[in-house]
Amino acid sequence: MRKNQLTATEAARLLSAADNILLLTHKNPDGDTLGSAAALCLALRQVGKTAYLLNNSTATGRYLPFFEPVAAPPSFSPSFVAAVDMADLSLAPPEAGPFADRIDLCIDHHPSNTFYAKETFLRAEAGATGELAYEIVRALGASLTRDIARLLYLAIATDTGCFRYANTTPTSLRYAADMLDFGIDSVELNTVFFLTKSRPRFEVERRVMETMEFYRNGSVCLCLVTEDILRRAGAGEDDVDNISAFPRSIEGVELGIVLREQAGGVKVSIRTSDLFDASAICLTLGGGGHKRAAGAFLPFPMGEAKRRVLAAIGEGDLPS
Amino acid sequence: MRKNQLTATEAARLLSAADNILLLTHKNPDGDTLGSAAALCLALRQVGKTAYLLNNSTATGRYLPFFEPVAAPPSFSPSFVAAVDMADLSLAPPEAGPFADRIDLCIDHHPSNTFYAKETFLRAEAGATGELAYEIVRALGASLTRDIARLLYLAIATDTGCFRYANTTPTSLRYAADMLDFGIDSVELNTVFFLTKSRPRFEVERRVMETMEFYRNGSVCLCLVTEDILRRAGAGEDDVDNISAFPRSIEGVELGIVLREQAGGVKVSIRTSDLFDASAICLTLGGGGHKRAAGAFLPFPMGEAKRRVLAAIGEGDLPS
Repeated sequence: MRKNQLTATEAARLLSAADNILLLTHKNPDGDTLGSAAALCLALRQVGKTAYLLNNSTATGRYLPFFEPVAAPPSFSPSFVAAVDMADLSLAPPEAGPFADRIDLCIDHHPSNTFYAKETFLRAEAGATGELAYEIVRALGASLTRDIARLLYLAIATDTGCFRYANTTPTSLRYAADMLDFGIDSVELNTVFFLTKSRPRFEVERRVMETMEFYRNGSVCLCLVTEDILRRAGAGEDDVDNISAFPRSIEGVELGIVLREQAGGVKVSIRTSDLFDASAICLTLGGGGHKRAAGAFLPFPMGEAKRRVLAAIGEGDLPS
Repeated sequence: MRKNQLTATEAARLLSAADNILLLTHKNPDGDTLGSAAALCLALRQVGKTAYLLNNSTATGRYLPFFEPVAAPPSFSPSFVAAVDMADLSLAPPEAGPFADRIDLCIDHHPSNTFYAKETFLRAEAGATGELAYEIVRALGASLTRDIARLLYLAIATDTGCFRYANTTPTSLRYAADMLDFGIDSVELNTVFFLTKSRPRFEVERRVMETMEFYRNGSVCLCLVTEDILRRAGAGEDDVDNISAFPRSIEGVELGIVLREQAGGVKVSIRTSDLFDASAICLTLGGGGHKRAAGAFLPFPMGEAKRRVLAAIGEGDLPS
């Protein structure tokens, strides 16, 4: 049952009435959860509140610098807890445990939001939670400083793939324009997030390309990310960010499959155009997900996992 | 000597006073010259003018479909000629020969514009000529149709790298938002231009990566595009579009060098951050260009060309 959904003004009113505010980011934080939460934190401080971000031990090196100016000290005891860009409690980082049953406000744009918070400001058609955060910053009566604009730009740009993805709306572009008006370092952010890749990432891609197999006139692409590839490439977690999307960056690939070697088996990630149902395929493998992005874990060595995946998509038979 | 520069209103007034208008795109047309010219053509037709784009034999397959609805018949005899996004007459396609000395209007955003036309509407700070074209469309009193919006989006998005490049301005984003308001197929355009690469392109990149050499702690990257690589990859001209920018897509590369095998020698393309002067390096090789993008042609086999380039950047000596 859906609870009443707040507007930006109502969300700002809740925050204005509170103090000692703790903001939660989701597990494996991205630019949207982090940029939105940090921007809100700075805006709340500007209007006189004590506000911090909860530590998030699942953050990778690329995102850690954004936490530093707003990280909560261990002693901080909040009286109001807000989750930002977090669709469900299962997406909370380990540090959020003590607050799981007392989240006062959730600010989010995921259609899958489970309304776990006392109050929710959800706008599923927004390109990024950063758009909602911008509206709250204004409704709080805070000024858009350069620091806040930079964080909101990070949020909106990263979640829309720098305005390339299908979730980009006219509002995403207009709000981002407001941020550029502040002369933020969008060029540096774009360079890091959208225009360059690390040498290990290039090396991973080069080696993964060598494993690629194509089926059905090139509309299906399967590739392997092995421990050996990652070790030889010297790749860390930041270097394989979004690697599941790699096969579908090849023209004509409608069904992209990445098999990643992990402890105890193989993680299967499937990304599809609307011609295939990733969720249905992953269900037959014991996994699940969405129509265009789904996954499964197969407790087998790579060779066996690959045979099962190919059988699941109708390319080859399972060995008896 | 700079001539008077027009405003959008003045450019529109010139076009409104004319008829039988021929629009020129530049050599090796990109999305900006083509999208801007085609959008202007449709807007001019909408306000009752006869207008066409001059054929451009240097267009690659990816851009040909944009020409079709607006291509001039061979018999068309214009009474007004406008060049769009063309900085200098040397950038005119072969077909433009008969019109070279009678270009009535130039609409452009290149700071290097040489004011070869009778009148010029130049705005060097614009992200794309598409932004100027949009203002002219409005000043003409034409309605922004979905077809026009799609072409203007193509122009602005391609020239700003889908809003990732340093030339992106708040205006680029706001004008693009106006185009998205029309429900254009931006997702399809973004997929083709920014989110996918052809299989031959991937294969070229994979093989070019294998030739990469790094110098000075990874800040210099040199790579080779040989005839053999292109043949093995089955690559056409569209597949090597902007390959000169490839080395600089690697994190930390400030000086990227591409040596491309061509008839009679090697084409050197250099791209730099502001830490290096591409133009100065290419001058020592008998070429030239801009500070951050320059080139030269070396009439030598690849091995010899590479030795000379490395000597020019202070990495190795010329064989005596």
